[in-house]
Amino acid sequence: MLYVIGLGLADEKDITLRGLEAIKKCVKVYVEAYTSLLSFGVSSAGLSTLEELYGRPVTLADREMVEERTDDILSEAHRSDVAFLVVGDPFGATTHTDLVVRAKKLGIKVNVIHNASVMNAIGVCGLQLYRYGETVSIPFFTETWRPDSFYEKILRNRQLGLHTLCLLDIRVKEPSLESLCRGRKCYEPPKYMTIQTAIEQLLEVEQMHGESAYGEESTCVGFARLGSEDQKLFSGSMRELMAVDFGAPLHCLVIVGKTHPVEEEMLEFYTIKTQNCGAKTERDRMILALH
Amino acid sequence: MLYVIGLGLADEKDITLRGLEAIKKCVKVYVEAYTSLLSFGVSSAGLSTLEELYGRPVTLADREMVEERTDDILSEAHRSDVAFLVVGDPFGATTHTDLVVRAKKLGIKVNVIHNASVMNAIGVCGLQLYRYGETVSIPFFTETWRPDSFYEKILRNRQLGLHTLCLLDIRVKEPSLESLCRGRKCYEPPKYMTIQTAIEQLLEVEQMHGESAYGEESTCVGFARLGSEDQKLFSGSMRELMAVDFGAPLHCLVIVGKTHPVEEEMLEFYTIKTQNCGAKTERDRMILALH
Repeated sequence: MLYVIGLGLADEKDITLRGLEAIKKCVKVYVEAYTSLLSFGVSSAGLSTLEELYGRPVTLADREMVEERTDDILSEAHRSDVAFLVVGDPFGATTHTDLVVRAKKLGIKVNVIHNASVMNAIGVCGLQLYRYGETVSIPFFTETWRPDSFYEKILRNRQLGLHTLCLLDIRVKEPSLESLCRGRKCYEPPKYMTIQTAIEQLLEVEQMHGESAYGEESTCVGFARLGSEDQKLFSGSMRELMAVDFGAPLHCLVIVGKTHPVEEEMLEFYTIKTQNCGAKTERDRMILALH
Repeated sequence: MLYVIGLGLADEKDITLRGLEAIKKCVKVYVEAYTSLLSFGVSSAGLSTLEELYGRPVTLADREMVEERTDDILSEAHRSDVAFLVVGDPFGATTHTDLVVRAKKLGIKVNVIHNASVMNAIGVCGLQLYRYGETVSIPFFTETWRPDSFYEKILRNRQLGLHTLCLLDIRVKEPSLESLCRGRKCYEPPKYMTIQTAIEQLLEVEQMHGESAYGEESTCVGFARLGSEDQKLFSGSMRELMAVDFGAPLHCLVIVGKTHPVEEEMLEFYTIKTQNCGAKTERDRMILALH
């Protein structure tokens, strides 16, 4: 049996009782390191927090390892119970569909144990989950690579009055270009996009396209360390949010669509209090009304 | 402190360690009964499964009770730690925004502990969560009340090639019309919409509007008891799914948009195998291509 188990968002205590029971039955436990294990007590010192809780050794599985060793992992899962742990929900922001497809093709039973993911936990800001349009990803721009396919999606969502969740880029264990050229693998330090960088890139793309999908005055909600004890959550214009220090990763951003009164009441608690607040809202309403 | 704690989808074992720890600190524990506690060991016999796990008494809070006794609940939360338990995620399909807003206005600290909800757990079928458009709700039609605002939303999602999650109506503790007329409250037995009823209503509305948002041959995924050990999950045309016995509630339905190869590979495991499968897919592709 292959157990694919969501760890939730913040730390080792976010696992469910069902998930923990399953792990304790497994002979081998892998934890994915594709995305971010920042808050899960995982460091160069090892996986001790998780191992203590689970009472068994845990193997860190980065993308390379999973790709190279999928056959081994699956043949272990054929013979016995293997757990593959995933930050968030197994099918949340990051997909582990491929591993599951390969397991099922080999006739290995797969048991998925769900947990919270960014896709539902953003509900905490009060914007209704069923009022979101398509989710977009904002990749790190480089000198030569500035993809902007998110722009059209955000524009569509805004035209429909829907909110847009922007998932911000995470680069973990990326081989450095220099090392690739030299033929041996060295890795860039991990890189997590901040809300500030995301907004800068968004505004750059708006300036290029000029279709007023959004602007400096558009209301957004910025989230840092969603679901953890020290989560930070602010609502304000893009301009205002750029000035906020959200602290350590992970960050994500919601571009707010048309709001209902109950949504507004909740957002109010997270609104940055500045002068000219009314003016800001008015201008953004005009952009939304334009469509 | 008011703890608002997600219970997850299936049963008492879906709570997180963080959630359980919080409950054990609370002097009073409420569990919402707006939606469905079907699988949580809650019956006329009481809340024994939950109470055993938590080691303390649990009060069932239906909508009426929460509306009438919000002040009491909040004043308890002012003085001490109170837990309010919610099926799924606190801000998932059902909103508990109002209770949180009122608490915050009174200066009561609110701590939200997330869990899986239908909004992310549907990822298990392989359709990517970021490829979903706006979520719709399908209400029970009556003789005189046949609201169809979902139609336009599905049409838009289909035009964009996006998947649509349809949440199916739940009627728990609805006063019967007869009893209201007689001036004393009696309640209808709880009613949960099946996939079959949902599809019948969807097709009736398509026939009225005639814009080919979808049709009998459109590919859907039906889910029953999502996240539980006996979850049932089938992909097929609306016509095919109507013939499937999905068993006990809760059900939900996804109308599939344009799919990527990796999505198709996963859906394949859940596809109902019948003859003329090719023809079916072809006709649905034509509807999708029409837009």
